[in-house]
Amino acid sequence: MIAKKMEGLVNNNSVIRQMFEEGKKMAQEFGAENVYDFSIGNPNVPAPEKVKQTMMRLLEEEDPVVLHGYMPNAGFPDVREKVAQSLNRRFGTAFTADNIMMTVGAAGGLNCVLKAIINPGDEVLSFAPYFVEYRNYVANYDGVLKEIAPDTSTFQPDLEAFEKAVTAKTRALIINNPNNPSGVIYPESTIKAIAAILERKQEEYGTEIFIISDEPYRELVYTGAEVPYITKYYRNTIVGYSFSKTLSLPGERIGYLVVPSEIEGQDKLFQAVTIANRVLGFVNAPSLIQKVVAECLEEKADISFYAKNRDVLYDALKEYGFECIKPEGAFYMFIKSPTEDEKEFVSAAKEEHILLVPGSSFACGGFVRLSYCVSYETCVNSLPGFKRLAAKYGL
Amino acid sequence: MIAKKMEGLVNNNSVIRQMFEEGKKMAQEFGAENVYDFSIGNPNVPAPEKVKQTMMRLLEEEDPVVLHGYMPNAGFPDVREKVAQSLNRRFGTAFTADNIMMTVGAAGGLNCVLKAIINPGDEVLSFAPYFVEYRNYVANYDGVLKEIAPDTSTFQPDLEAFEKAVTAKTRALIINNPNNPSGVIYPESTIKAIAAILERKQEEYGTEIFIISDEPYRELVYTGAEVPYITKYYRNTIVGYSFSKTLSLPGERIGYLVVPSEIEGQDKLFQAVTIANRVLGFVNAPSLIQKVVAECLEEKADISFYAKNRDVLYDALKEYGFECIKPEGAFYMFIKSPTEDEKEFVSAAKEEHILLVPGSSFACGGFVRLSYCVSYETCVNSLPGFKRLAAKYGL
Repeated sequence: MIAKKMEGLVNNNSVIRQMFEEGKKMAQEFGAENVYDFSIGNPNVPAPEKVKQTMMRLLEEEDPVVLHGYMPNAGFPDVREKVAQSLNRRFGTAFTADNIMMTVGAAGGLNCVLKAIINPGDEVLSFAPYFVEYRNYVANYDGVLKEIAPDTSTFQPDLEAFEKAVTAKTRALIINNPNNPSGVIYPESTIKAIAAILERKQEEYGTEIFIISDEPYRELVYTGAEVPYITKYYRNTIVGYSFSKTLSLPGERIGYLVVPSEIEGQDKLFQAVTIANRVLGFVNAPSLIQKVVAECLEEKADISFYAKNRDVLYDALKEYGFECIKPEGAFYMFIKSPTEDEKEFVSAAKEEHILLVPGSSFACGGFVRLSYCVSYETCVNSLPGFKRLAAKYGL
Repeated sequence: MIAKKMEGLVNNNSVIRQMFEEGKKMAQEFGAENVYDFSIGNPNVPAPEKVKQTMMRLLEEEDPVVLHGYMPNAGFPDVREKVAQSLNRRFGTAFTADNIMMTVGAAGGLNCVLKAIINPGDEVLSFAPYFVEYRNYVANYDGVLKEIAPDTSTFQPDLEAFEKAVTAKTRALIINNPNNPSGVIYPESTIKAIAAILERKQEEYGTEIFIISDEPYRELVYTGAEVPYITKYYRNTIVGYSFSKTLSLPGERIGYLVVPSEIEGQDKLFQAVTIANRVLGFVNAPSLIQKVVAECLEEKADISFYAKNRDVLYDALKEYGFECIKPEGAFYMFIKSPTEDEKEFVSAAKEEHILLVPGSSFACGGFVRLSYCVSYETCVNSLPGFKRLAAKYGL
């Protein structure tokens, strides 16, 4: 009854999404306060007040025919120009509206890029652990995602393995910095090394290889670490951004793509991503929220809230004997499972009403992901459960 | 630099969209009041006041974490239930939330259906003239759109040709009722005949053939004609709906799919469309506007406005000698080109600052589409130009 390609997807439905939906059911059964749902990146910090104020003002003052109407598929030109100027102020770039396409979240943007550049059989690389949907996005266009095995001591890219993995078929590398699920940040030296390898390989194979930089967590950094803006290091870079995390608007589906002028044939590539936006059925990023985010480009949700969660969980989990790298960015912690089969540990945690996601969902078995964009109370109240789990596994 | 599949799309970029973008430029050059842009279905009637009031109230009263947050990929359960109940009240159906998936407009919904059911090489039928994007949507999943030639005297489906076109490879028929671009409505007798043909063909080939009913214009009817609700006539029907036209919200990208329980394996199919929504990068329909439309299900934009446009244009054009069927629904008029190559006529109209779309964009050369969802002034002020065009072509 359903398409063959969908069979596998239905049978292996997203574990993250299943957890999220199960969490909602458990909350109904046991009471929301008794379920510690760390399964999904659904921010519990409200959007900045300015989001609401801007939306109310636009609704009062602007022509609804414009506010809710069609605009060019790439988005409102004034919105795109404001995004470009904000990036230029913050990162010393030189973008204009012609480099920016507004998208239905980062997921929509990534699909437009991949539709625009992938031929069947093309390979797309990503460093494990990585956001598992990348594999599905690449498969939508009959590309093949190839993962580079993780260095589980640092969760930094294994550059030697990366260099070996680049072939004549390599069309792109997807980078996620700060990283979901590990919470690490790839420093400038690593970005430079990746760029140098790709420059060499492009030359060697006579191909164009893109870096697709997926950056929904760019503003969520706890340590003062710099997150390099990759277009400055490598010409063939396309940036995908989402306001979901920074402005706590994941349900609104709003983000953008940056297609720099340095890319050869940029105008054609920009046309291609814009047409992809149309024919994939997005048509355009939702209109009102485009206008809203354009006024909130320097806002961000209060991340001190996430920092506090990170500290209380990290300190307690280390104390109980769990192994984990202290996250520098995003709002995830990637914890070593105390038992080899991390799915067993995920099940044991569920007995404690603690919802985690197995690392195998990020191509990194033996670990579990904890998403700490929840309330502080959820973090604190989950600790006795973690303590019992530590005891259970003899940590 | 771009994917091979995209080359053709970039070279044949949507004529409708090009016209729309050109119209915006012409408006800047000549003044908006001197350009008669009938190119795109971008309603010029403001959204009903209740849309604004509901949005303001939700922003004041509801938790922003819920309002702007993730929900199940199929949409907020309460919104889906309200949509189901509204359909049941109006059409005597028996849907529940489990039959409704909220989508990123009808375009997003159609892509989810096609992703869920199309295997490479499958054929999808549509009656010409049809919305040209259907061809691109089907091609996204390596299906093939096959058109059934138009009956240009009535623009009603040619049932004999349809029956011949159904083969063992036929996976679906896309119907658009009321029709874009012709403005005709397919009556109950036609729907019954189509259903009977498909039942026979399913039996003959041992296949399942879907009707995908694309219904953004369902509420835009001027004549009291009934638009049959196809799920009541044919079991394997999936309905795609959009609020773009009814509530004048085309930029907001909000619609829904109906997947009736009568379909064998409905639960698996529903899972498949939901997963398609996720992996194609829509993730979910925009969240706040979901909550808004759920409160506005019995609202519609003031269509007396469109009726007035229809009458003034139809009467004048007929008087000037143009040939055209009087539209019963939607907000399009499909006019016979006074010259065989309708692109020449489109160019001549552009000289008069009148923007029309060639019928070849709807697989029906020799005609042009006029979209009359514009202001009454635009309609009236365009008439002298049409009169000069009629004279030019000796009508």
